[in-house]
Amino acid sequence: MADDIGLDTKALWSLSYGIYIVTSCSGGRSNGQICNTVTQVSAEPPRVLAAINKDNFTHKFIEESGVYAVSVLEENTPMPFIGRFGFKTGRETDKLTGVEQVEGSTGCPCVTENAISIFEAKVFATVDVGAHTVFVGDVVSGRVLKEGKPLTYTQYHANKGKAPKNAPTYRPPEKAEEKKGDPSMKRYVCNVCGYIYDPEEGDPDSGVAPGTAFENLPDDWVCPVCGAEKDEFSPED
Amino acid sequence: MADDIGLDTKALWSLSYGIYIVTSCSGGRSNGQICNTVTQVSAEPPRVLAAINKDNFTHKFIEESGVYAVSVLEENTPMPFIGRFGFKTGRETDKLTGVEQVEGSTGCPCVTENAISIFEAKVFATVDVGAHTVFVGDVVSGRVLKEGKPLTYTQYHANKGKAPKNAPTYRPPEKAEEKKGDPSMKRYVCNVCGYIYDPEEGDPDSGVAPGTAFENLPDDWVCPVCGAEKDEFSPED
Repeated sequence: MADDIGLDTKALWSLSYGIYIVTSCSGGRSNGQICNTVTQVSAEPPRVLAAINKDNFTHKFIEESGVYAVSVLEENTPMPFIGRFGFKTGRETDKLTGVEQVEGSTGCPCVTENAISIFEAKVFATVDVGAHTVFVGDVVSGRVLKEGKPLTYTQYHANKGKAPKNAPTYRPPEKAEEKKGDPSMKRYVCNVCGYIYDPEEGDPDSGVAPGTAFENLPDDWVCPVCGAEKDEFSPED
Repeated sequence: MADDIGLDTKALWSLSYGIYIVTSCSGGRSNGQICNTVTQVSAEPPRVLAAINKDNFTHKFIEESGVYAVSVLEENTPMPFIGRFGFKTGRETDKLTGVEQVEGSTGCPCVTENAISIFEAKVFATVDVGAHTVFVGDVVSGRVLKEGKPLTYTQYHANKGKAPKNAPTYRPPEKAEEKKGDPSMKRYVCNVCGYIYDPEEGDPDSGVAPGTAFENLPDDWVCPVCGAEKDEFSPED
């Protein structure tokens, strides 16, 4: 007899992923974004897939040109670099300016900065999975840039990275317990990426000691995940 | 101008994966296999995909019934347990007998042994990618079984796990340097899973000291990856 397993989507939280930059280009323009759903699905011929949100600017380019490039980010990739590609839209800012890259045979910019390998794919099948499209492609180029460990999704989360709302693996934030009677310990949420500044933890990587109230952060302090400035933060509900 | 990136498929080796058991059932029979290509592709509704080799027995069942279950294996899953599902065919042995499991709402056996979470999916799209089919499905059940870290493909390889020839991420083995004049240091290859016994390393986890020739291994020694016996090994070419 069948068990009633229920439907707890937290069961999906233990799937393992890497963190990649996926770029594409069309009509002389290009863009890139963070993606964690790049997977090899065939060894011979080499084939991969990537799930891209339909609202993303990069999606439009892949749809138009049928090509994309992937950069495998290295373990110690700085969070602001990830924030640049993961939490800003290419409609408002040129994310690729000033970033180390090479142009691949597909015309896509292949980001080499903070990457241990790059490859390009030509799309031969797409699957509409709702908010995202899965682009399945033939690998047409590939290069190992250096030795090194890839950044994993687990490591990214350990570094306090968040999944944006348009990620296939988005998880709603959990509320903190009410801190009664001590407004200086109020947590603040980054409006850009969802990072939560918790005064109890501070931000030691940026030289902010535990116990520092949000109001007492230096004016030039920025979100350690996406680089947003202090005025992009709101008190947590 | 475009760079010549070349086509080194080692660029794909740095992609990150977990290690899962995928099961399915049809016509009163069931089977399961190891799979590393399980990926969430939509948060709302929850949707996943898995790439399964067409030659695998589990593929036939998924094709017939349109359902599959996934078990996320925990970090310390014993290698012979993985070998049971990864390097034997369900055509010759019932892999699921004696394994802890629950029956899900789809009828699939959900393996709970060595698993931190389980979920089931109903296929709504398939993509033929050559040797494999990508099965995209709606998640219809899910349960977290316990706290714990998932086993990653990287950890599995660190434990000397191999990808079988029918995996989408198969890598041909690299040859050892010729050991001149010392036949006792000859390496032996497991015919079942491709694990290489190297006398220089021994098999310390099984109590075999470095420097032990293959001929001097105890008769009850088995492949640390798939559990095959000594007579399943051949001298390396």
